[in-house]
Amino acid sequence: MSDDAAFRQSTEDFFYEQIPLTRAMGVKVASYSEGALVLRAPLAPNHNHLGTAFGGSLSVMATLAGYGLLWLELGDRSLHIVIRRSHIEYLRPVTGEIVARCSRPNPITFEAFRNRLKQKGKSRLELEVEIVEKDQVCVKFVGEFVALRD
Amino acid sequence: MSDDAAFRQSTEDFFYEQIPLTRAMGVKVASYSEGALVLRAPLAPNHNHLGTAFGGSLSVMATLAGYGLLWLELGDRSLHIVIRRSHIEYLRPVTGEIVARCSRPNPITFEAFRNRLKQKGKSRLELEVEIVEKDQVCVKFVGEFVALRD
Repeated sequence: MSDDAAFRQSTEDFFYEQIPLTRAMGVKVASYSEGALVLRAPLAPNHNHLGTAFGGSLSVMATLAGYGLLWLELGDRSLHIVIRRSHIEYLRPVTGEIVARCSRPNPITFEAFRNRLKQKGKSRLELEVEIVEKDQVCVKFVGEFVALRD
Repeated sequence: MSDDAAFRQSTEDFFYEQIPLTRAMGVKVASYSEGALVLRAPLAPNHNHLGTAFGGSLSVMATLAGYGLLWLELGDRSLHIVIRRSHIEYLRPVTGEIVARCSRPNPITFEAFRNRLKQKGKSRLELEVEIVEKDQVCVKFVGEFVALRD
């Protein structure tokens, strides 16, 4: 197994163990590079009454991409991370595999977040996630996450 | 089986068949009366890395309560109903069973929505959902749903 495959496997194992819904949804880590985490999930366990991706599944994928990015960027899975609020826009139906991408915010914002966490033991950060299919943005998500040191 | 039990069973069967994630989450219809739909789901398949309810599962429950209320109030499961956007506030962790309640909006708003659907074939409605535990509101959700006649 390559380092990259081993990394993806260990992140998936973490999701499956900690958040069992991710296993039922078939969530996979597609990639993590240059500060961007991409998750994917098949349509079959995630479809709705119209045969397209269920809004709830899309919301889960976006939320999970945000959590995942923070765990990976902070390099500490023992951190207490919660989501405080989120807003999601469903622009177009997703008709196949769900692919959710969360990118690290700009370096100044991210460093300020990290320093606040170090100094105050608590810090909040807004993360954006997009779900894209055939080069079209289908879902836009913005979530506010809070990290706390115990 | 009483009428009420049969009704709950048929609604659950509809959810399970149309949106398979609801089965994995163990979603049940707790009650539907006086224009309010209450759904519930056990914590076990829906916990997160902190042992409380996963934000994604809470979002699914709220979204589903909105869909369910519209199907029931409009009395027509063949209607094309989609969610356009939603906002969710996670106020307190949910530590046990997830209980989501969606109530019909005030009669004037709901009649206007229903009339527009009849006249234009398309209508949108904002629905509020609360997730309450031990008399405390843990989650507040507002979603905009669109109903279309084919």
